[in-house]
Amino acid sequence: MNLRKTFLAAIAVATSAFSASALAQDQETYNLSLAQTWGPNTPILAETTKHFAEMAEKMSDGRLKIRIDPSSKHKAPFGIFDMVRSGQYDLGHTASYYYKGTIPNAMYFTTIPFGLTAPEMYSWFYYGGGMDLMEQVYRPYGLLSFPGGNTGNQMGGWFRKEIKSLDDLKGLKMRTPGLAGEVMSELGVAVTNIPPGELFSALERGTIDAAEWVGPALDFPMGFQQIAKYYYSGWQEPGAEVQFLVNEKTWDKLPADLQEILRVAMRTAAYDMYIESYHENAMAWDKMKENYPDVQHKVFPPEVINALRKTTDKLLEQYAEKDPMARKIISSQRDYLKIVRKWTNISDKAYLESSATE
Amino acid sequence: MNLRKTFLAAIAVATSAFSASALAQDQETYNLSLAQTWGPNTPILAETTKHFAEMAEKMSDGRLKIRIDPSSKHKAPFGIFDMVRSGQYDLGHTASYYYKGTIPNAMYFTTIPFGLTAPEMYSWFYYGGGMDLMEQVYRPYGLLSFPGGNTGNQMGGWFRKEIKSLDDLKGLKMRTPGLAGEVMSELGVAVTNIPPGELFSALERGTIDAAEWVGPALDFPMGFQQIAKYYYSGWQEPGAEVQFLVNEKTWDKLPADLQEILRVAMRTAAYDMYIESYHENAMAWDKMKENYPDVQHKVFPPEVINALRKTTDKLLEQYAEKDPMARKIISSQRDYLKIVRKWTNISDKAYLESSATE
Repeated sequence: MNLRKTFLAAIAVATSAFSASALAQDQETYNLSLAQTWGPNTPILAETTKHFAEMAEKMSDGRLKIRIDPSSKHKAPFGIFDMVRSGQYDLGHTASYYYKGTIPNAMYFTTIPFGLTAPEMYSWFYYGGGMDLMEQVYRPYGLLSFPGGNTGNQMGGWFRKEIKSLDDLKGLKMRTPGLAGEVMSELGVAVTNIPPGELFSALERGTIDAAEWVGPALDFPMGFQQIAKYYYSGWQEPGAEVQFLVNEKTWDKLPADLQEILRVAMRTAAYDMYIESYHENAMAWDKMKENYPDVQHKVFPPEVINALRKTTDKLLEQYAEKDPMARKIISSQRDYLKIVRKWTNISDKAYLESSATE
Repeated sequence: MNLRKTFLAAIAVATSAFSASALAQDQETYNLSLAQTWGPNTPILAETTKHFAEMAEKMSDGRLKIRIDPSSKHKAPFGIFDMVRSGQYDLGHTASYYYKGTIPNAMYFTTIPFGLTAPEMYSWFYYGGGMDLMEQVYRPYGLLSFPGGNTGNQMGGWFRKEIKSLDDLKGLKMRTPGLAGEVMSELGVAVTNIPPGELFSALERGTIDAAEWVGPALDFPMGFQQIAKYYYSGWQEPGAEVQFLVNEKTWDKLPADLQEILRVAMRTAAYDMYIESYHENAMAWDKMKENYPDVQHKVFPPEVINALRKTTDKLLEQYAEKDPMARKIISSQRDYLKIVRKWTNISDKAYLESSATE
């Protein structure tokens, strides 16, 4: 690769009679920087950006070089939006619902409670108008945005006591952020925000009674299964998509082939993250069942689910009332769900139910 | 692009003092040919190869050119394996279970009745050992093989009469190919093979009583909903993956960057086909419900499902007994299913059930 570059440079000099700049520009190496919310070794998430950078470098024969800065380097895990917007970084990998304060309409591109599952969400993004809406939200900030990987269906959390009715939620101290936290709060839950590093001991000491994190793969290393016995299926993030951000000026500087290489590498890395999450969650849940036989899987009773749904609808309606663009995005996902879920029900759901052996 | 090529050629001549061959080789254009089972305009499937070729050409800045020959050109829709093997074509896009006669162990890479759903199947391919097994099957033929797109969960077929018990299957004349056909045949169904173009009139005239095709998106244009009222959820192809084949000699000739471009373009095109199928099936099913309100969705009764499963297990065991490699692949998928399905059940399945509003 280096030999080739030297050679090309030599030619560019030797053949100045030709318009050598075209060649020089085409073969230019672009050193891009990427800031991610995650640490350098966060399972699945940090692997996604590494995997993306490797594909882009290899496909471009080294003309794209992507330096990845983890949160330990830039110290601003929730400042990715600002840093890519300002041009301090060319690219970012983060979740759009972290920026509720600065760019509130972005959160719906991560997930909506009682919303789309991962394949339904990708269908909406790529074939149901989602990409266009996301562009309308991000372009005014000089940013391009692409789906960056799906966590799959997230679990509803770890509870020390079984939730048998709505009453059991009243006064319960729980860590659950974002829109899910707002909903839980309306139902009488004392929602608290505790840094990840302190969650285990907070649950152990009884500072909190319950904690929602992600799913088996990322929950297992947190150790919740050692303390809380009840593991609930989720309602709040049925297919959470993280995202890539690209500074528009960086993008516009790149030749068309490198733009396409970046686009396709991001798209594949995102899909791969969904599939890797699926695999890792399955493996971790299997290990959990084996090593912690006391852990019980639970589903919230209909009374609780109905209240969660009603409250979600109420809050979403409040957001929609305040902002026409919020209404546009929420409605687009809701309308799409009505159609796509019918298909999910007669295909995967019917199959999973009718072929169930236990 | 052409200008640049002319310019590069001129340089190669002008600078013969340098080792110009390195440059010439790196910038060489590779004209590859692809044979597909499908017609030039088959929905979803033909779009997948077009989409793949476009990505590869754009990412390689035109150094890869892929000519797609549909079945109307090469006249051998089920001869893709042989034509890519012999080098008559560089690439192929087909389904591995079409080659049961020549390479019987390949069929398990498409789908297995009562097997993995699409995300479970991709997890198995990419993280659960599937790719390695597929390589063991295809390499001896001088072929590389990659997942080529998933149809999603296929429907169980169109029936003119409701299937209420096992007895209703006896003597029923049905179009359903492959392993599903063998299973149905064991249960007393008169399985017939009728060319696609004649299926509609065969069902209309009563030559057959039922027809299994794919799913709403591809079934709708066939017109079955005009004749048969009962549309059953499937059991036989829960996540059918088509595939790309690449001639090994072609592959080995390509520089590493173009190999990676091909690999990633195939991977993305495959995932995109799954998502496009999801979307198109949802839209077609919605349209069907609206325009043909008589169409009823049905699930086979437990008695029928249990018999189908038992017979499937029996036939798979027979295949496994005859061939150690068949046993290895079947066992690998079955073992993986046992683990991954537990995760599907507490995530997507539990969510779909608990959040269901109707």
